[in-house]
Amino acid sequence: MTLAVRYTGARALDTAPVEVSAPGPGEVELAPAYVGICGTDLHIFHGDMDARVGTPAVIGHEMSGRVVRVGPGVQGPRPGDAVTVMPLRWDGTCPACLAGHRHVCAHLDFMGIDSPGAMQQRWTVPAHTVIPLPGALPLDRAALVEPTAVAVHDVGRACVRAEEKVVVVGGGPVGVLIALVTRATGADVRLVELSAHRRRLAQELGLVALDPDAVDVCEAVRQWTGGAGADVAFEVSGAAGGVTTAVEVLGVRGRLCLVAIHARPREIDLHRFFWRELTLVGARLYDRSDFERAVALVADGTVPVERLISKVVPLVEAADAFAALEGGADVMKILVDCGDDLQEGMA
Amino acid sequence: MTLAVRYTGARALDTAPVEVSAPGPGEVELAPAYVGICGTDLHIFHGDMDARVGTPAVIGHEMSGRVVRVGPGVQGPRPGDAVTVMPLRWDGTCPACLAGHRHVCAHLDFMGIDSPGAMQQRWTVPAHTVIPLPGALPLDRAALVEPTAVAVHDVGRACVRAEEKVVVVGGGPVGVLIALVTRATGADVRLVELSAHRRRLAQELGLVALDPDAVDVCEAVRQWTGGAGADVAFEVSGAAGGVTTAVEVLGVRGRLCLVAIHARPREIDLHRFFWRELTLVGARLYDRSDFERAVALVADGTVPVERLISKVVPLVEAADAFAALEGGADVMKILVDCGDDLQEGMA
Repeated sequence: MTLAVRYTGARALDTAPVEVSAPGPGEVELAPAYVGICGTDLHIFHGDMDARVGTPAVIGHEMSGRVVRVGPGVQGPRPGDAVTVMPLRWDGTCPACLAGHRHVCAHLDFMGIDSPGAMQQRWTVPAHTVIPLPGALPLDRAALVEPTAVAVHDVGRACVRAEEKVVVVGGGPVGVLIALVTRATGADVRLVELSAHRRRLAQELGLVALDPDAVDVCEAVRQWTGGAGADVAFEVSGAAGGVTTAVEVLGVRGRLCLVAIHARPREIDLHRFFWRELTLVGARLYDRSDFERAVALVADGTVPVERLISKVVPLVEAADAFAALEGGADVMKILVDCGDDLQEGMA
Repeated sequence: MTLAVRYTGARALDTAPVEVSAPGPGEVELAPAYVGICGTDLHIFHGDMDARVGTPAVIGHEMSGRVVRVGPGVQGPRPGDAVTVMPLRWDGTCPACLAGHRHVCAHLDFMGIDSPGAMQQRWTVPAHTVIPLPGALPLDRAALVEPTAVAVHDVGRACVRAEEKVVVVGGGPVGVLIALVTRATGADVRLVELSAHRRRLAQELGLVALDPDAVDVCEAVRQWTGGAGADVAFEVSGAAGGVTTAVEVLGVRGRLCLVAIHARPREIDLHRFFWRELTLVGARLYDRSDFERAVALVADGTVPVERLISKVVPLVEAADAFAALEGGADVMKILVDCGDDLQEGMA
């Protein structure tokens, strides 16, 4: 038996013992060390994703941990190895997979949403999802490789180049990570964020953060870019106003990378897309090369993810952490410490 | 003196004599032969562009003709040469120009809108706007080089490749030209058009044209693409429903090229852009390479533009032709015959 955090219905989580069975052929059993709580996990907690998530469901997909044992035929991962997981399973046969875009497979299994996730003391996953970590990388930081891979993918979709001027609208964890990965490409960044707490954190990371309640963001970008407008904008806020800002700051041939989930259609000024020949590009998840680049950026400190960790809570307090995040507390990333020893975790 | 068609206020055109002065340094005087009436000309006629167009204004920008005389210092064009005009003047100093995107110059002078156009018997233009035509190309066809250049630019912005499956929403002249240029790249096309007259014309050109009132376009595209969805969609309808259709037909990583002018913001399903990693790309006007490719496609018959010419009217009947187009008559392109002899034109 092992302990797991389970979603049991809207606004309800429990921590319960679950069965562990030996890894099958091609599978790897992991002992998760740290699991980050993501915006998607909060959506699940709110009950917004009940059509997709059954109950009870073990959630969590931002993780680090160690290999416990491997099933028959597994090459690569060895017991004791520090690893993270790219939590995607695809069918390999749909048009998206055949075109090489497996991360947007028509029948994608996103582990932690569509199948059991990482917020437990033992997690069995397909060997192909396991990504090795450098031994020297602390496992708490490594739990932020997954959101960093999101940011790497987004920056790649937007084709950000050195010297470009980039605006990131929304300064939650993914927005800040996009700003940091953008900076690592040699581009110059401005972050737009309503929360003073998040702006302060961004500033501590050396980012310029604008308060859209206090500053005319479009005018500020106009001045910053000598009237040209931004080359790239990332919409990470999920708000209608964020979309408008992201469109308005762009100069001729500017690219808007859409990262946030907008459940409702948004009004878009298509005339501006025509007039300035703008581009809007959707970005979702990541592929293995994004994950590997994220490991490198986190490991060498280029993206100092440790600064985003607001709090680490034990597995049995995960439900309280969700409630705190839901209450809009001044936090960025909360990690759940699964304990990397089974006995300790059961204590 | 020469005759010119002039916009004199909402729904009013006259044909009046205007002064001709000798071409200045770097200028070329042309005798327009044929001038097409474009959707933009209709917008001007309706009074929708009064903020930009003064009165009286000589309109028209889709033209063919011959060189009459050249001003001091002009290299290239010689009297008698058959030519068309890329009707753009840019400032060369704004951020768009400096970035190499002169066709979307912040202070673009679009000749025929912002300055005198081609619908007259003599038209003086900068030498750099003059595009030579092959001597064998009939001048009535050559008047359609400009809208063909629009189509070439749009197909280029969408990066259409051979074997791709492409949906064009809107089957007016530009929509049909996009479909024909797309076909010339080796891609497969479906046109969506409400008007039976326009569908029939498209079918005569060998295009498959769908009636959105009779067919579930998304389902038809799904079957045509084996469930994958289209690679590219062009929105050329200008209607809210056209945008919706163009978004819905696209498969994973599909590209939507926005060609039509949408004066009002449109509701866009951004979640689909995220989920399928779609791209929206705005396309406006053309550059010189688009124009030169358009000349080649029209000249060798790859794009049989003569099939789009519904009617040719003399200069003095231009006002009636505008009224007919406004009445929604079953027409595609109407050409105004300016007469390529001054005396004949004045008769």
